[in-house]
Amino acid sequence: MTSTTGRLFRATTYGESHGGGIGVVVDGCPPRLAITAEEIQRDLDRRRPGQSDITTQRKEADQVEILSGLFENKTLGSPIAMLVRNSDARSEDYEHLRDVYRPSHADFTTEAKYGIRNWQGGGRASARETVGRVAAGAVARKLLAEAAGASVLGWVSRIHNIEMPEAASQGSSFALKDVEASPTRCPHTETAKQIEAAILAAKESGDSLGGIVTCVARGLPAGLGEPVFDKLDADLAKAMISLPAAKGFEVGSGFASVGMTGSQHNDPFTSGADGAPRAATNRSGGVQGGISNGEELLVRVAFKPTATIASEQQTVNREGEAVTLAARGRHDPCVVPRAVPLVEAMMCLVLADHLLRQRAVGLL
Amino acid sequence: MTSTTGRLFRATTYGESHGGGIGVVVDGCPPRLAITAEEIQRDLDRRRPGQSDITTQRKEADQVEILSGLFENKTLGSPIAMLVRNSDARSEDYEHLRDVYRPSHADFTTEAKYGIRNWQGGGRASARETVGRVAAGAVARKLLAEAAGASVLGWVSRIHNIEMPEAASQGSSFALKDVEASPTRCPHTETAKQIEAAILAAKESGDSLGGIVTCVARGLPAGLGEPVFDKLDADLAKAMISLPAAKGFEVGSGFASVGMTGSQHNDPFTSGADGAPRAATNRSGGVQGGISNGEELLVRVAFKPTATIASEQQTVNREGEAVTLAARGRHDPCVVPRAVPLVEAMMCLVLADHLLRQRAVGLL
Amino acid sequence: MTSTTGRLFRATTYGESHGGGIGVVVDGCPPRLAITAEEIQRDLDRRRPGQSDITTQRKEADQVEILSGLFENKTLGSPIAMLVRNSDARSEDYEHLRDVYRPSHADFTTEAKYGIRNWQGGGRASARETVGRVAAGAVARKLLAEAAGASVLGWVSRIHNIEMPEAASQGSSFALKDVEASPTRCPHTETAKQIEAAILAAKESGDSLGGIVTCVARGLPAGLGEPVFDKLDADLAKAMISLPAAKGFEVGSGFASVGMTGSQHNDPFTSGADGAPRAATNRSGGVQGGISNGEELLVRVAFKPTATIASEQQTVNREGEAVTLAARGRHDPCVVPRAVPLVEAMMCLVLADHLLRQRAVGLL
Amino acid sequence: MTSTTGRLFRATTYGESHGGGIGVVVDGCPPRLAITAEEIQRDLDRRRPGQSDITTQRKEADQVEILSGLFENKTLGSPIAMLVRNSDARSEDYEHLRDVYRPSHADFTTEAKYGIRNWQGGGRASARETVGRVAAGAVARKLLAEAAGASVLGWVSRIHNIEMPEAASQGSSFALKDVEASPTRCPHTETAKQIEAAILAAKESGDSLGGIVTCVARGLPAGLGEPVFDKLDADLAKAMISLPAAKGFEVGSGFASVGMTGSQHNDPFTSGADGAPRAATNRSGGVQGGISNGEELLVRVAFKPTATIASEQQTVNREGEAVTLAARGRHDPCVVPRAVPLVEAMMCLVLADHLLRQRAVGLL
Repeated sequence: MTSTTGRLFRATTYGESHGGGIGVVVDGCPPRLAITAEEIQRDLDRRRPGQSDITTQRKEADQVEILSGLFENKTLGSPIAMLVRNSDARSEDYEHLRDVYRPSHADFTTEAKYGIRNWQGGGRASARETVGRVAAGAVARKLLAEAAGASVLGWVSRIHNIEMPEAASQGSSFALKDVEASPTRCPHTETAKQIEAAILAAKESGDSLGGIVTCVARGLPAGLGEPVFDKLDADLAKAMISLPAAKGFEVGSGFASVGMTGSQHNDPFTSGADGAPRAATNRSGGVQGGISNGEELLVRVAFKPTATIASEQQTVNREGEAVTLAARGRHDPCVVPRAVPLVEAMMCLVLADHLLRQRAVGLL
Repeated sequence: MTSTTGRLFRATTYGESHGGGIGVVVDGCPPRLAITAEEIQRDLDRRRPGQSDITTQRKEADQVEILSGLFENKTLGSPIAMLVRNSDARSEDYEHLRDVYRPSHADFTTEAKYGIRNWQGGGRASARETVGRVAAGAVARKLLAEAAGASVLGWVSRIHNIEMPEAASQGSSFALKDVEASPTRCPHTETAKQIEAAILAAKESGDSLGGIVTCVARGLPAGLGEPVFDKLDADLAKAMISLPAAKGFEVGSGFASVGMTGSQHNDPFTSGADGAPRAATNRSGGVQGGISNGEELLVRVAFKPTATIASEQQTVNREGEAVTLAARGRHDPCVVPRAVPLVEAMMCLVLADHLLRQRAVGLL
Repeated sequence: MTSTTGRLFRATTYGESHGGGIGVVVDGCPPRLAITAEEIQRDLDRRRPGQSDITTQRKEADQVEILSGLFENKTLGSPIAMLVRNSDARSEDYEHLRDVYRPSHADFTTEAKYGIRNWQGGGRASARETVGRVAAGAVARKLLAEAAGASVLGWVSRIHNIEMPEAASQGSSFALKDVEASPTRCPHTETAKQIEAAILAAKESGDSLGGIVTCVARGLPAGLGEPVFDKLDADLAKAMISLPAAKGFEVGSGFASVGMTGSQHNDPFTSGADGAPRAATNRSGGVQGGISNGEELLVRVAFKPTATIASEQQTVNREGEAVTLAARGRHDPCVVPRAVPLVEAMMCLVLADHLLRQRAVGLL
Repeated sequence: MTSTTGRLFRATTYGESHGGGIGVVVDGCPPRLAITAEEIQRDLDRRRPGQSDITTQRKEADQVEILSGLFENKTLGSPIAMLVRNSDARSEDYEHLRDVYRPSHADFTTEAKYGIRNWQGGGRASARETVGRVAAGAVARKLLAEAAGASVLGWVSRIHNIEMPEAASQGSSFALKDVEASPTRCPHTETAKQIEAAILAAKESGDSLGGIVTCVARGLPAGLGEPVFDKLDADLAKAMISLPAAKGFEVGSGFASVGMTGSQHNDPFTSGADGAPRAATNRSGGVQGGISNGEELLVRVAFKPTATIASEQQTVNREGEAVTLAARGRHDPCVVPRAVPLVEAMMCLVLADHLLRQRAVGLL
């Protein structure tokens, strides 16, 4: 249950990796938003496997069909249902997994929860489920642009032990083209080269690597988010940790804040150009007390190394017998570059939802 | 809006730091749970200020009154309303803050959001709001114990740059008495002593410190959590980042997973005593694919150094004029020890909710 | 669970008829709404028992205390918690009901659901629960007035077989003073007199009467409500049938529409004073396709005769033994006049919620 | 927004009458429920137009495709996405409606709400939207049968002024075959014949008729429903009034209860065969205090005469000019027989949801 995210701008995803298709219903998008299938496809194409030699060679066309909610390329205010057909399913790649629990996968927990599992792929735990998130995120992204002039951009800031210089991340002016310049989606050229080599080496050795995605929102108005449970950063934390393989989340200074004192960490207010308060530094990461303060919103998400590896591993099957397992089929040695559009999509969804919520607050 | 957390086990908090009182309505707690006001007071007492010389000397009795939902010390299945009266309010401590935005506080963002602010204290952004969370968490804690035999325990694992040895945290056997043995709530005696000294030094210098709280759940059944948006760790991430001053969250290996390869990181399955699969290691932190696997659930939460410090700081007032500010009144140099019962409360709330949710899954 | 109504303007009630108190938390009310405790008390006083000789003589002061959410008589945007203490509880009136299931009451079903019951009164099924609804409704009423210039008024249009002339109800211009002119809350003087006599006769004979409350909203903008599940009239239906003793709901022409043909029933559009479309007739009752059309919103709610009667009735106890029962204590021979402020409160809550929801729709 | 119904068993419908397709995502259905596309198609076929000469002659195949959520004909616990393609769209039938507001339709209110409207059909207000409800209801129906042994059956009890004898409705033993024996879906043969003649006469005269659908649930356990806002009958009221053309709802004795006294109306308890309390009469309609009591659940829904009629009507267009309008295309002179599966579907959805909710209540 609860394949739905958002309170007012709501996305409900559906679909397993193997089956008729995968998709999403976006409900609550305001009417009269101009959007085309091409704009949605653009984000889906960034998520698609097979984009370069550092990602899986699985070919998935992932062409989106918009079933409802648009009329003459404008939203109607009704649910926007989007469908991507499954294809290139090689269920024989999974036959040997019918009774086996892959280490650090969701096979065992899915059975513990439901007492049934579609062993022909990862079911709902498959990264394919994120197709629906990206399609919905593309609608949210357009809404943010049109209604608030805000934009969201993510990039790979670290893979394994290779990290871009911290200075390059802070208050950065990276643009989408900088991120897309390398298949690693790291906009720092030197770092990107090292990352690419590291991923290829991991692929060679049948292993996998994790990394960190940094994501910012620019142009966000102050006032988004709630003061208690639905803090803007709390909703972002949930959204990010809900992504496959995510293990950590931080906003602004994050874990590094622990090494600072209050006098070092606090962001002094100054008077901005228009007389409105501006934070002179941004250790808060654009959120104070759970509410956006108009500065750049910055989060970082840690992804573990992919659980699927070509090397042999020990595990057990449903009968409790020890089994030696090695991944067949085509898998990513490092999913982090492909996670960038996912992180962006989740941030767009959270921000669009809070943008709508803040409208209701401003009734009087 | 949305001062409510949880889907089936739901807590709605209310109250400002200054006003008639603060409290919570717990809705959805199953009937016939034996619980007394004393059990709830016990957790509230751990949250209360003035417990030792390393916390604020503000005295708040924080006596809970249960207004509804119980009959002969058993839950009725109806809403459990709990109220804690405000007391010892020194609004004169806040008079100088009427028009000033404290750095890294929610003063400015609250006004940006609502166009109005109760300047007599922190309003909803005050740590006093967490009284309601702790009261609700105590009910959830009892439910976890009675319905699942599960328990939750948190502790301070780091303050500023003083960290307990990692080995001491993993698969630990700390008990509540170990945590409560020191006012720091660090169960590692050597580390606790250093932390206590560091906090007193910060107090002396008019500064503040942050830290990390580690929290575990033991005895949790496999199968809790959802596979997509409402992953167990995603809901925990949101719950934790919704706490005041929280800046980072990780589950299991967290950010450290990034430095490992897949073959190093994966948790191999073995066959447990009863034949059921057991993870031989626990880098997953008790959650795989968003669903509990029956191992110890482990999360870590980073808290920034408290924004309120006695030292002078630069900021602006509502007119955009530069102002020099120094905290008056009585404040914590380090809130992290008092955050331990908050982290526990949030974990209890999330787990109780997912325990109820899993019941509905198991209908057939 | 789910003692909460509304999606954006949300009210969570709590409290049993016997216990510390009864109340409500209103979450999501926009900030800067001017409101005083007196305005809330005014509606509570209309709900209170003991107002005249046709209602129960139980005395309940029902003084509301506002615990949070207001600052200098303006809403803060935070939860508005309100508490009414219980008093005049005569639990000895209920001692004989400890093991008995009163006919057409919720005693048996409460036990079937929860396996426990507070026999000292009606628990959550008690009409006292509606105190919270009325308090919340008073806030919603003020919001409707301030934000939309809309008002809500209800009245008794029928008791037992005594009904006011239909013509007097349609497109009426009744004001609050007309309704409050009689303890029956029937604004049609002739009918009111007959109703009063009928209620006194029922009281005399130890029996009870039901009736119908008509309720209208005036000044409502077009565009409120949703096209599918959350139709404005659907949400009103739920709200009304959630009231104690409600057995039927209709909007506009209601059940009478069945006796008409389409050509008789359709409301022709004409061009209004400002050129905007106006419905020349209002059989739709102000809602078309679930969305308000700007005409007077009109609903009718049927209340059964009160289940509590002084006459003897047959029933069984927990052991399945036949028992003869007669109500002790002080009860209303007819609750319908006191249901008028309840119907109004529920309509105010639904309309305030949809007013906020429509704000989010209008983002672009 | 909010095209979703249900809290735990949730259905999200999507689709306009004209566009790629129409469908539903069912989320929260328990795993391991055996169900086939044929079982869903069976209910869809009962909803489909063109079944007899008293319904519209529009041909819509309405073949359902299950996109996800099933594996080897068992539910996985994941979202069940179902799609029905639109076909036989004659948008030229609607060209003349581009700027016109049809009387008592949702054309005007849709524009008032959204500022945009797909004039090629009724958009979300089209009865085609109910395809998704029926598909979801079929899953709910199977769950009720398997998990609780409960069944739901509806029938036409009145069309215009032709009503089946009341005695035939009470505690009836009608079966599906009795209902389906006549295209009118009235199981009382004599009444059915008169109804059929009346509908054909209305068709002939270019007019339309309304009616009443009675719907019962049998075999329902006691204890379903909530005591306050989410009363079982309140949720049913909302579900029913959310259907196109519904104007009234009643449960059990409904509006007729108003003509009775308390002593006439109360249902005395007796001791059932197993010693458990049974209501000797069923004026409560199977619900007491919002919670099912184990007796037959009975509701009645009033549908107005269809707004679309072949006769000429007066209305205005977007410019405020008077327009004479007559329906083109193929329309039902009376939708009530086709509303029977809709009423059943909504009842199934509400009951399945409360069945799951009650599971969580029973945790201890």
